[in-house]
Amino acid sequence: MPAELRVIGLEGVPEVRVGDNLGALLADALDRTPGALPLQTDDVLVVTQKVVSKAEGAAVDLSTIEPRPDAVEFARQFDRDARQVEVVLREAVRVVRMERGVLITETRHGFVCANGGVDASNVGQESGAVVTLLPEDPDASAARIRDILRERFANDVPVIVSDSFGRPWRVGIVDVAIGVSGMRPLDDLRGTPDHDGRVMRSTVRAVADELASAAELALGKTAGRPAALVRGAIFTRGEGSIREIVMPSENDLFR
Amino acid sequence: MPAELRVIGLEGVPEVRVGDNLGALLADALDRTPGALPLQTDDVLVVTQKVVSKAEGAAVDLSTIEPRPDAVEFARQFDRDARQVEVVLREAVRVVRMERGVLITETRHGFVCANGGVDASNVGQESGAVVTLLPEDPDASAARIRDILRERFANDVPVIVSDSFGRPWRVGIVDVAIGVSGMRPLDDLRGTPDHDGRVMRSTVRAVADELASAAELALGKTAGRPAALVRGAIFTRGEGSIREIVMPSENDLFR
Repeated sequence: MPAELRVIGLEGVPEVRVGDNLGALLADALDRTPGALPLQTDDVLVVTQKVVSKAEGAAVDLSTIEPRPDAVEFARQFDRDARQVEVVLREAVRVVRMERGVLITETRHGFVCANGGVDASNVGQESGAVVTLLPEDPDASAARIRDILRERFANDVPVIVSDSFGRPWRVGIVDVAIGVSGMRPLDDLRGTPDHDGRVMRSTVRAVADELASAAELALGKTAGRPAALVRGAIFTRGEGSIREIVMPSENDLFR
Repeated sequence: MPAELRVIGLEGVPEVRVGDNLGALLADALDRTPGALPLQTDDVLVVTQKVVSKAEGAAVDLSTIEPRPDAVEFARQFDRDARQVEVVLREAVRVVRMERGVLITETRHGFVCANGGVDASNVGQESGAVVTLLPEDPDASAARIRDILRERFANDVPVIVSDSFGRPWRVGIVDVAIGVSGMRPLDDLRGTPDHDGRVMRSTVRAVADELASAAELALGKTAGRPAALVRGAIFTRGEGSIREIVMPSENDLFR
């Protein structure tokens, strides 16, 4: 069997606004994207966090925010917006690092990331002082989109909500999964033989994260395309939750 | 312009042995893979570390290794091979964490990863007690493959050497780049406008890592396919080094 993966950027997703039925907008876009339909059993739809948050109204108008003194001081020192720093702190269950202008927090979902996923870019011209937050429950966001697509196309396509995260020790950001529905985010190969017949001791593929990264390669950051269909990846369908990919704190060596 | 990415797994790469001309083997495989040729200007060839290390003889026969007492004790406590632990320590310039059965080191290349990239799986049936090391200079490994492909096809295709790394805070491994030639591993969008016209302050895409992950999705871990061509990604050609993606220690908040 030839190993071939395709990532198809969805065409013509309009600017998303609060209250929009994002699943329906994505279904329309699938209809309009050459080669996307019919959906295949190895398809996964990757949707970027920004449009999910916009549709769900997971956003804050910074003009309503009164920053705490710590936020003001940190922002002054490192040329940042104190109100955004305040929002990040409000969204955090734990501050992991707050130094040298970098603010890394743990969100209530368990994600450890810069600025707790609070993001000012790509939120729409009209909203000068608005930041988006991570969706309240990104697995549920993915499930809602999946349900709408299933109604529309009579095919069940797994859905990933993605966001761009930095990493310790490596420069730059990569897209990772922050919500999943209809697939196992991890592909656990422990105990199975590799190509040479050797039993793998520690191989757990984070396929949901790799799918998010593959989608980003086709979408980029500037073209206004918020979703892509990935066809042909090696992964397992089934019910799954992004919680599986969050490292339990007892295994976290980098608190 | 439609956004479409393809990842084409190379067909029929034979078992690689020390001294093999890996570039020539990959060129033969490109010849034999439907749809791979002619090479396109937005192609990148991703080659997994294991075959690069095998071809270069970057491997150690564990029967020749005398582990130090620390390695023996750590191995005993966590049911590991003391000789492999010893090799990891020899390859390290710094031990980042050595606890709870996890050994994370910094390699001479600057990579921080579990077991310093020393790997026992997929190294060939005949080599029961052999582990592979990371290539001595993975940028140079990528450049050698690129040179051979350029001679063969009169097209210049960027090459990435990839390996599977774990990440703090997230379960599972993803493939990342450990060597590049012919492309910029980072796509620095700082100062450019996003889709909404807002200037991006901190967006540096780690495209080489995302390309490695996209390739892994098509190759998997068990099918014996060590290389894939990625076609249609958004990235920048040019000279680049994996050193650009290694976080300078002064910016490392997770020593």
